[in-house]
Amino acid sequence: MKVAKFGGSSVADAVQLKKVATIIQADEQRRVIIVSAPGKRHADDVKVTDLLIELGESYQRKQKYHAELAEVIARFHSIVDDLGLSNQVITKIESHVTEIFQSDGDLNFKLDAIKAIGEDTLAQILSEYLQSLGINARYLNPKDAGLILSEQPGGAQILEESFAEIYRLREYEEILIIPGFFGYTSAGKLVTFSRGGSDITGSIVAAGVKAELYENFTDVDSVYCVNPSIVKNPKEITALTYKEMRELSYAGFSVFHAEALIPAVRAEIPVCIKNTNNPDALGTIIVSKKEVDIQANPVVGIASDNGFMSIYISKYLMNREVGFGRKLLQILEDEGISYEHTPSGIDDLSVIMREEQMDEQKEEIVLERIKAELKPDQVHVERGLALVMIVGEGMQSQVGTAYTAAKAFKDANVNIEMINQGSSEVSLMFGIKEKAVNDAVKSLYQVFFNK
Amino acid sequence: MKVAKFGGSSVADAVQLKKVATIIQADEQRRVIIVSAPGKRHADDVKVTDLLIELGESYQRKQKYHAELAEVIARFHSIVDDLGLSNQVITKIESHVTEIFQSDGDLNFKLDAIKAIGEDTLAQILSEYLQSLGINARYLNPKDAGLILSEQPGGAQILEESFAEIYRLREYEEILIIPGFFGYTSAGKLVTFSRGGSDITGSIVAAGVKAELYENFTDVDSVYCVNPSIVKNPKEITALTYKEMRELSYAGFSVFHAEALIPAVRAEIPVCIKNTNNPDALGTIIVSKKEVDIQANPVVGIASDNGFMSIYISKYLMNREVGFGRKLLQILEDEGISYEHTPSGIDDLSVIMREEQMDEQKEEIVLERIKAELKPDQVHVERGLALVMIVGEGMQSQVGTAYTAAKAFKDANVNIEMINQGSSEVSLMFGIKEKAVNDAVKSLYQVFFNK
Repeated sequence: MKVAKFGGSSVADAVQLKKVATIIQADEQRRVIIVSAPGKRHADDVKVTDLLIELGESYQRKQKYHAELAEVIARFHSIVDDLGLSNQVITKIESHVTEIFQSDGDLNFKLDAIKAIGEDTLAQILSEYLQSLGINARYLNPKDAGLILSEQPGGAQILEESFAEIYRLREYEEILIIPGFFGYTSAGKLVTFSRGGSDITGSIVAAGVKAELYENFTDVDSVYCVNPSIVKNPKEITALTYKEMRELSYAGFSVFHAEALIPAVRAEIPVCIKNTNNPDALGTIIVSKKEVDIQANPVVGIASDNGFMSIYISKYLMNREVGFGRKLLQILEDEGISYEHTPSGIDDLSVIMREEQMDEQKEEIVLERIKAELKPDQVHVERGLALVMIVGEGMQSQVGTAYTAAKAFKDANVNIEMINQGSSEVSLMFGIKEKAVNDAVKSLYQVFFNK
Repeated sequence: MKVAKFGGSSVADAVQLKKVATIIQADEQRRVIIVSAPGKRHADDVKVTDLLIELGESYQRKQKYHAELAEVIARFHSIVDDLGLSNQVITKIESHVTEIFQSDGDLNFKLDAIKAIGEDTLAQILSEYLQSLGINARYLNPKDAGLILSEQPGGAQILEESFAEIYRLREYEEILIIPGFFGYTSAGKLVTFSRGGSDITGSIVAAGVKAELYENFTDVDSVYCVNPSIVKNPKEITALTYKEMRELSYAGFSVFHAEALIPAVRAEIPVCIKNTNNPDALGTIIVSKKEVDIQANPVVGIASDNGFMSIYISKYLMNREVGFGRKLLQILEDEGISYEHTPSGIDDLSVIMREEQMDEQKEEIVLERIKAELKPDQVHVERGLALVMIVGEGMQSQVGTAYTAAKAFKDANVNIEMINQGSSEVSLMFGIKEKAVNDAVKSLYQVFFNK
């Protein structure tokens, strides 16, 4: 059994929905379908969810919301018209909105119910469309699917008891069409996940039904091994492990909303990124473990991200001072700063963090505390750093990866400010100056992928 | 003005003391001389300080100590006889020992007074010998030299007020011969530094008199750039910075007792390692800053040390968890473990520490706490690691050092388990398996020093 999730661009209009129907029909293992709300049809378009958010904001400001409502209805109207379906679902939207706003209860729950209309309507339309094609499809509300969430409007969490409920979806004979992004509290109130929540629903349902595969349909053929805005036409990645995906997504790759994948990761469900517009492309598969081929390229991807800074601290005989590092991290934690890495020498220590976390005022406070509480010989701050990551589980068993990487930096005449390689060896991280990033990444691509 | 300290092997017998006298005469800037107690004359010999410690232990066990005392006296007897001096100093030793043991007060202070006899007697003998050669020399007791220490027998610390006192040694016309290793509390009790304390005295006196150079005479021509038991006849290091010395001494180089150097480091006094047996050799000079020659080898030395272990911890989305690293370090601190480095990926973190700190029982406790308090996905321990350090302040400004180092590991077919380079770039640290150390170090020597 496969769970397939279709993102906003895959359900943006009737043309896209026809592709979705073809994809569903092409593989009888695709038994549970999760859908987003219609996304952008072109660059200047507005997503249905954004229209619904505006609608809610108008209501909240006690303004009229008819213009936004009309636009939402028009979006769905053009879809059902183009698919030759009835208006049945759409005619209910207006009264449903009125009903939500007239109900008792907390405003945040009302806004969640409004936001969920996009996914919910689309799921009903898709189900009706599939039935019109003679497919045994069935719309299933998340309440009936067993998605029981915590009472946190706009940021709800799945409750553990849901998974057993969701497992029972395997008993349905129909192909189930479930709207993403929302569920219900045990008291029956509608609540949504955080933004991008259809990915969360897909991942939860895939874990719940113990799917053999969770297919995530989007608008790219696969994940590239390097940022295509730096290297033209780079190679595609066919298989990634969760760990590799995490390391890559950290430094500039927006493969996935990492939190969204947690349920699938915990249940070890393989995840496949596929293209609705080119479903024959193999896509990129993300698995918990993959066979390591010693002959193969040990590196699967290169990622980079700007906007880092370092605080460098040196003190003669620092390494004899028990608790020095812990006290430093405590100062950062007190000041609400989360750090990324702490490379160290014998008598010095650097803390690498995202620059946005520390404006000049905060920097002053932190440096003053470090000076007062740790009495270092030297402290200084360097901004404008970039991290470049080379990622691949195969690096663990191959001699010479660090050599090849270091050669790329040398070839590009880029000075390495910092190297950090943990004993996991899933990744090798280099700190360099931001202005050198493109040269470094191009050179790394050459040595690892263009040999 | 130079302060010269002569170690145990430099004052082991009359032959050595004659060399010391020649060295003192050779440079009129050598105005303050610090001496150790006589060390070993050959491999099977016993150091005078060890004899004195045994003497104290016999007393403590209420046993007879005449054998030890006789041996101490015999050592000094042969020195004064060979130098043609009187027995005046030696005849006082026995009554001095009796007087110490019969005095009131704490046992630890008595033992300190016994241990100090070696340095004190030798300083008096050297002074008498220099006078016999017509040199205007003068023995000065540490009390008269201004060495005021904290009340911690066997591990005393210098008090800040001493430095102004010591500065007044500049007023003496004579060449001052001061015994190392001990000083006096402000109440007038004799106390010693920790073992190797003559180096501490030398460093304190050099800082106190604001010497232009602190010469540390020992039995090697200079510091080698790599362990001579791994690489035969390696190159010598002519100049090192304090930071480089620290990084090297950390991983297997026993250049210096690092704590001993603190007063000299703080006062920025250059330190020179020289050979009593070959005083014309340039030696190795240790300075606070040196001119970085861009053309020169950016690496000054390669050090390695066995006996490390790592704890590897991974947890999906670890880097979103504020306080994760700090909590881990807190657990180690609670369990009395000091760590060395913490290389990290995105969702994993390793802690590198000395293996001796954690037996199997302690390991179990620490792992249980990590599992219970941090709920990681994975934790495992790897023992039998070695650290290899490449050290040089010049590395900071040279592109390609990491490349050259990584090439050496690849050439030697050694897998790198871990890399850690702080933003200081004084050192580049590699973690490898212990059994690969010699191959790695030889290969690194080849690429950096034998090009």
